[in-house]
Amino acid sequence: MNYKFIQTNMNKALSTFLCVLFAVALNAQNIIGFKSENIKKQLELEASFESQISSTNLDSWMKKMAARPHYVGTEFGKENAEWMLKQFKSWGYDAKIETYHILFPYPKVRILELTAPTVYKAKLTAVPVEGDPYTEQGDELLPSYNAFSTDGDVEAELVFVNYGIPSDYEALEKLGIDVKGKIVIAKYYGSWRGIKPKLAAEKGAIGCIIYSDPEDDGYVRGDVYPEGAFKNKTGVQRGSVMDMPLYPGDVLTPGYGATEKADRLDRKDAPTITKIPVLPISYEDAAPLLEALKGPVAPVAWKGGLPLTYHIGPGPAKVHLKLEFDWQLKPAYNVIATLKGAQFPDEWILRGNHHDAWVHGAADPVSGMVALMEEARAVGELAKKGQRPKRTLIYCAWDAEEPGLIGSTEWVEDHKQELQEKAVAYINTDGNGRGFFNAGGSHTLQTLVAEVADVVTDPQKGVSIKERKIARDKINSGSADFKLYALGSGSDYTPFIQHAGIASLNLGFGGENAGGEYHTIYDTYSHYKRFKDPEFAYGATLAKTAGRIVLRLANADLLPIAFDPWHQTLSSYLEEIMKLCKTMRKDVEKHNNLIEDNAFYLASDPTKPFIEPQKKQHIPYLDFTPIQNSMTRIKASIDLFNSIDLNSLSNSDLEALNKKLMHTELSLTDASGLPRRSWYKHQIYAPGFYTGYGVKTLPGVREAVEQKEWQEAQQQIKKLGLTLDKLNHHIESLYSIAKKK
Amino acid sequence: MNYKFIQTNMNKALSTFLCVLFAVALNAQNIIGFKSENIKKQLELEASFESQISSTNLDSWMKKMAARPHYVGTEFGKENAEWMLKQFKSWGYDAKIETYHILFPYPKVRILELTAPTVYKAKLTAVPVEGDPYTEQGDELLPSYNAFSTDGDVEAELVFVNYGIPSDYEALEKLGIDVKGKIVIAKYYGSWRGIKPKLAAEKGAIGCIIYSDPEDDGYVRGDVYPEGAFKNKTGVQRGSVMDMPLYPGDVLTPGYGATEKADRLDRKDAPTITKIPVLPISYEDAAPLLEALKGPVAPVAWKGGLPLTYHIGPGPAKVHLKLEFDWQLKPAYNVIATLKGAQFPDEWILRGNHHDAWVHGAADPVSGMVALMEEARAVGELAKKGQRPKRTLIYCAWDAEEPGLIGSTEWVEDHKQELQEKAVAYINTDGNGRGFFNAGGSHTLQTLVAEVADVVTDPQKGVSIKERKIARDKINSGSADFKLYALGSGSDYTPFIQHAGIASLNLGFGGENAGGEYHTIYDTYSHYKRFKDPEFAYGATLAKTAGRIVLRLANADLLPIAFDPWHQTLSSYLEEIMKLCKTMRKDVEKHNNLIEDNAFYLASDPTKPFIEPQKKQHIPYLDFTPIQNSMTRIKASIDLFNSIDLNSLSNSDLEALNKKLMHTELSLTDASGLPRRSWYKHQIYAPGFYTGYGVKTLPGVREAVEQKEWQEAQQQIKKLGLTLDKLNHHIESLYSIAKKK
Repeated sequence: MNYKFIQTNMNKALSTFLCVLFAVALNAQNIIGFKSENIKKQLELEASFESQISSTNLDSWMKKMAARPHYVGTEFGKENAEWMLKQFKSWGYDAKIETYHILFPYPKVRILELTAPTVYKAKLTAVPVEGDPYTEQGDELLPSYNAFSTDGDVEAELVFVNYGIPSDYEALEKLGIDVKGKIVIAKYYGSWRGIKPKLAAEKGAIGCIIYSDPEDDGYVRGDVYPEGAFKNKTGVQRGSVMDMPLYPGDVLTPGYGATEKADRLDRKDAPTITKIPVLPISYEDAAPLLEALKGPVAPVAWKGGLPLTYHIGPGPAKVHLKLEFDWQLKPAYNVIATLKGAQFPDEWILRGNHHDAWVHGAADPVSGMVALMEEARAVGELAKKGQRPKRTLIYCAWDAEEPGLIGSTEWVEDHKQELQEKAVAYINTDGNGRGFFNAGGSHTLQTLVAEVADVVTDPQKGVSIKERKIARDKINSGSADFKLYALGSGSDYTPFIQHAGIASLNLGFGGENAGGEYHTIYDTYSHYKRFKDPEFAYGATLAKTAGRIVLRLANADLLPIAFDPWHQTLSSYLEEIMKLCKTMRKDVEKHNNLIEDNAFYLASDPTKPFIEPQKKQHIPYLDFTPIQNSMTRIKASIDLFNSIDLNSLSNSDLEALNKKLMHTELSLTDASGLPRRSWYKHQIYAPGFYTGYGVKTLPGVREAVEQKEWQEAQQQIKKLGLTLDKLNHHIESLYSIAKKK
Repeated sequence: MNYKFIQTNMNKALSTFLCVLFAVALNAQNIIGFKSENIKKQLELEASFESQISSTNLDSWMKKMAARPHYVGTEFGKENAEWMLKQFKSWGYDAKIETYHILFPYPKVRILELTAPTVYKAKLTAVPVEGDPYTEQGDELLPSYNAFSTDGDVEAELVFVNYGIPSDYEALEKLGIDVKGKIVIAKYYGSWRGIKPKLAAEKGAIGCIIYSDPEDDGYVRGDVYPEGAFKNKTGVQRGSVMDMPLYPGDVLTPGYGATEKADRLDRKDAPTITKIPVLPISYEDAAPLLEALKGPVAPVAWKGGLPLTYHIGPGPAKVHLKLEFDWQLKPAYNVIATLKGAQFPDEWILRGNHHDAWVHGAADPVSGMVALMEEARAVGELAKKGQRPKRTLIYCAWDAEEPGLIGSTEWVEDHKQELQEKAVAYINTDGNGRGFFNAGGSHTLQTLVAEVADVVTDPQKGVSIKERKIARDKINSGSADFKLYALGSGSDYTPFIQHAGIASLNLGFGGENAGGEYHTIYDTYSHYKRFKDPEFAYGATLAKTAGRIVLRLANADLLPIAFDPWHQTLSSYLEEIMKLCKTMRKDVEKHNNLIEDNAFYLASDPTKPFIEPQKKQHIPYLDFTPIQNSMTRIKASIDLFNSIDLNSLSNSDLEALNKKLMHTELSLTDASGLPRRSWYKHQIYAPGFYTGYGVKTLPGVREAVEQKEWQEAQQQIKKLGLTLDKLNHHIESLYSIAKKK
C-alpha cells in the first residue's frame, strides 16, 4: 500500500467517523421501541457492550473449537459443548445441555466405479496439504458423503444432468433423454444439493452422483488450496440431502422432540431419507466419468471448467455405486444458556448458532459460534455489573445442524408451546466472513435491523455497516434502500420462524471471503486465518451487531416491530406473483404461436434429435382480490397503529401491548401448514419445494402458480387472504389496547 | 430416424411445398422491377436456371480446388485461377485474368518462448490427423502466422488482456494494470483479430500473442478434430492483421490499383502494417504461458476453457517473440468473366467470391467459389440457348482476399471510374455452410432479396429459405421480418460498397455447420464433407439464390430498388444513436453520483488494488435535427417515387430512370470519406474503427459519439444531413424523370 493511498483512506476514515458520530447523534432522537427518555441510557449500554468485544477471544476460541472434526456424535463435539457450557456459566448464565437422540448415518461402505467403457475406481479422498496440519488428521476426518442418502447398490448407464434442477430436466426432455433406470451425475450449486437426488428419483433415476465442478468453486474461480482459497481437485463437499423442504430435523420424529423415549418411525418409513443412493465426489473423480460419456454435447450453459467436451449420455459410461451406512441414534447436545430478564422474565429473546461441523468447520460454523459467545460474554459481564436486560436472553449452541437442522428443530418441537407463548424473536448466525452485512428475516424487524446497522462501524472502511452495504448495492443494482432478504432455509432459524411462527433474523458478513472450502476437510483454522476474516474483525462486528439487536429487543419499551416495511415488502411479493402469471401467459401464447407456425420444426437441425414440442395449456386469470383487499385493510390498520404515541403510553399499556405484539409473527402462520408439507406453518416464507434453501415467498400461492396447479393456486389465495385477515385483526386489537377501546 | 418422424416430415414437406407453390403464384402478381407482362417470363427463366444447378459439380470442383494449399502467390493458386478461366470460357464467358502485384509477407522466422519463470518453446505447428490426408502435406501447409504483422524481436513480461478489445483495457485500467512495455496475450474472438495488436500498440505494448481458447472454438464447444469439428489443441487460426479499418487492399498502394508499374509506398511508411509483432498460437502453446502468469485473478467474464486459473500478470511469465517475414511482391490473379448484356451492355451486375485460401480452404472460400461457378455455368448455358440477360454480368474470382481483400480492392481501385459509371450492384459470397439464409447489404435491395428468398426452397425442410430463417428468428427474438444486416467488413464487398459506392449484397447459409477449422490446416475437403454441407445441398441453394438475384437485377424493367425498407432501417439506426447518447448520459450521471457518494471506495476490497475512479464529463445534448429533417424530406420524396406506376412507363422512361437509379448508392457516399480514414466513402455503413469486421452504421456520427468527440459528432451530423439531402435530390430527380417534369 503506498503512502498516498493510506492518506486518502485516513482522511476518509476520519470524515466518515465524524459522519457516524453525527448519525448517532441524530438517531438518538428516535430509536424504534424506546421512549425518548430511555434512548440515551440504551445507547450508553450498547456502547459499553461494544467496548467489551475482543476479537482476540474469537481467534483463540476458534483455534480451540476447530482443532479436530466435531460432527454430531463425536467425542470432540461433546467436549466443545461441555466447554461452552462452562464458559456460559462463568459469564453468569444459567446454562445446561439439552440432549436429543437423533438418527445419524455414518458412511460404512462407499464404492463408486466406472465399469464401462473403461474402468476407473473413484478415490473419494481429499489429500492433506502442506501448511495445514488440520488436513492431516487421517481417519478422524469424516469420509465425504451425503447424509441421509439411502443405502444402495446400483449399476447403470450414466447421464449428465447439469445442476439436476427442474429446468435441466426440461432441457433433457426436449432432447428426448430419459434418466429412467440410469445414474445421474450433477454439478453442485444451482440449488440446494438435496433437490438433486429428490428430482432424479422423481424422474426415475436409480442413483445420483454430485460433484464440484472447477467452474463453480475450483480453479476457474481462483487459485486452489493451499495456494489459494478454492477447491483443489480432491476436495469434496459433504452435506445433507435429507428432504428438508418436507420437514427438517430428526427423520424419525417429525413434528415432536427426539427425546430419549419418543416414539420413532421405522427408518424405512422415514419420508425425508432419499429414495436413491447419492454420493458427492471431487472433480478429480468426476473427470473420468464425464470423459467416458457420449451422446449429445451438453448445451453451452451446462459446460463446466473441466478440460473436456461435456456430453450428456446416456452411457456408454456405466457406473457402479454402492453405499452402506451405519444408522445409529446419536446424542445431539444443545447448549442452552439463559440470562433471566430483570422485568419481563417470560418474554424471551433467543439467539443461536450451531456448533457441530462436517469436519473442523472453522468457517462453518465456528466463526459464527465464537462471535455469539463473545457477544454472550459481554452481555453477561454487563449483567454482572447490574445492567441486566429487562427481558430474558437465551443463548443457544445447536448440535446436529449440518445433517438437517436437527438440534434446533428437535428443541423447538420439544418446547413449541412454551416458545410460542414466550418467545419474542430468534436471532440466528452461522459461518461468518469478511465483507458486507447481510441480514434476512421477518420484515416487521427491518426497521430495527436498519437502525442498528446504521450505528455499527465497518472495521475496514470506518463507515457504518449499512452505508458500506448500500454503497455496494448502489453500484450493483442502483438500490439505496436497506432491506432484509426473505428467509428460505439452510440454518437454524427455520424451525423458529417457519414451524413455530417466531419472528426471526439471520445475520452475517461476507462477500470478500470467497473460497471452495465449504464442508470439506479444508475448512480449517489455517484456511480461515488466510482467506476468511484473518483479524476476526468481522467476527467482532457480528457480535456487536447481533448484540445490539438483542439488547434493543430486550430493553425496548415497546417491542420494536414496524409494519410499514412489512406491508411494502409483502405488496412487492404479490406483484411478483401477478407478474409471473402474466409472463407465463405470454410465454405460453408465444410457444403456442410458434407451434402453430411450425417454427420449432422448421428451425430444427435435421441431423440432431428433434422432439416436437406440444401446445401448452393457457394460463388462466386468477382472482387475487382476497389478498389485495386484505392488504388494503391491513394498510388502514397500520396507519392507525402508527398514530399511537409511544411516549404517551403508560407502563401497563406497554405491558399489555407487548404481550400482544410479541405474537405478531404467529398470526402469519396457519395450523394446517403448506400443501403437502404441514410442518411448514408460515404462510409468507418457506424454503422452495424444488429449490431447497432458496426461499419462496407467499409459498402456497407462488408454488401452485409455478407448478401450474390452478385450482390449488386459487385456494391458496383464499387461504392467504384469511391469514392476512388474522394479522389485520391482530393489528386492530393492538390499536384497541393502545386506545383502550 | 423412426418411421413416424419420417411421416410427419413428409406431410410437412408436402404441405409446405403446396404453400410455396401458392406463394409463387401470388408473387407472380408482383415482382419488384418487372412489368406485369414480363413476370411470367422471368419466373420461367429462373425456374429453368434452377433446374440446371447440380450439387455434384460443387463436390467435384471443391475436391479439385481444395486439394492443396493455395494462398496468394502459390503455384496451386495460379493453377486454380487458370482452371477457372478455362471453365468460364467454356460456359460462353469473355474471361480473363487481371493480375496485380501486391505485397505479401511469408513467415521466415517464428520464435515464441517462455523465458521465465520456467522455460517453454512454443511448437507453432498443428499436427496431421488420422483420416484426413490433406493435413499431411507437411511444408506445403502455410506456417501459422498473422499476415502484416511487422517484423520484430522483443522480450518482455506477459499480460493477459482477455479479447484485447477496448472494454478489456478499461477493466485493466480499473485494476491499475498497464501494458506499456509488455507483451500481451489475447484470446481470439470478441472482435476482428486485427484490432488486438492495433489496440495493444496504442496502449504501449511491444508484442502481441493471439491464441484460440478452447472455450471459443475448442473442446468446450464440442468434440475436436478429427473426432468432431472443433479445434484440437494444436490448431492455429491464421489471418490478416492489416489495419483494414484504415484501408484494405495492398498496403503499398492505398486508393489506386497495384499494377506492375504503380507508385508504391516504402514499406516502412505503410500505415496498415502493425506497429508491433503479432503471432497466433494454439491452446497447447498458450497453456504454459498462461499458467506462468501471476498477479490478479482475471474477472469471471474473462476466463476461458483451459484447466487453470487465469491470472492477468504482468509476469512473472516473460516471453521472447521473434518474427521475420519475407516481404515480396506477389502476383494476385483475379479471374474476371463477362457475359455481355443483350440490351444494356453498360449496366453491369457484378458477382464475386474469392478463390485464395490460407491453407486448403475447403469451407473458406472454396464452398462459396464453387457455388458461384455453378451459378455462372447455368446462366451461361441459358445464354447459349438464347436467354442472354439484358444487362451485363461479370463473375469475379478474387485472389488475395485473405491477407486483406487485396485482389478485389486493387481491381475496384483500378477500375473505379468505370465501375461508378456502369455498375448496378455487386453480389458477394464467401465460405458457405448448412443451415439458415443470411443476407446483408444495401437496404434499397432488401425487398429484392426478400422476394427471392421467398421462392428458393430450403433443401432440408422444403419451405422457402425465408420461412426457415424467420422461424428461427421468431424463436430467438420474436421478430418475424426479413431484414438485411448492415455490411461491416471481412469479405470482398468492402471496396464495392464502402469505397466505390456500389450497392452490394453478401449472401450465405450457416448455423448448422459450427466448427473450429477456420483458417487452420483442418479446413479441408474431408472436414467439409463430414461437418459442413456434406451433400452440397446448401451450396446448390446458394447458387440458386444468388443466381435469381443476379437474373432479376439483369432483366428488371425498372432496377429493383425499394426505398421504404431503406428509410425504416436508417431511421432505426438514428434512433439507436440517440438512445446511445441517452444511455451514456444516464451512465455518466450514475457514475458521478456514485463517486459523490464515495460508493466505489466503500464497496472496494481493501486487500485488492483500488484505483479511485474519476468523475466523467457530462454527455452534452447533440442537435440531431439536420438528420431528422432530411429523413422527413426523404420520406416525402419516397412517397412520390412510390406513386410511379411501373406499367405505365415507356421504354425510354425506363432507360432514363435506370441510368439514374443505378447510381443511388453513390449518393450516400462523400468524397472526403470518414474522419481519419478517407478511403471509406460510404456515410451509412463502415467497419468499426475499433471493431474491425463489426459494422458501424452512420459511422461518422456513431463513432464520434462512442469516442465522446462531441464537436466531431456535431460536424458529422451536419455532414450526414447533407449526404442524405443528396439522396433526397436523387429521389426527387427520379420522380421528375418519371413524371417528365
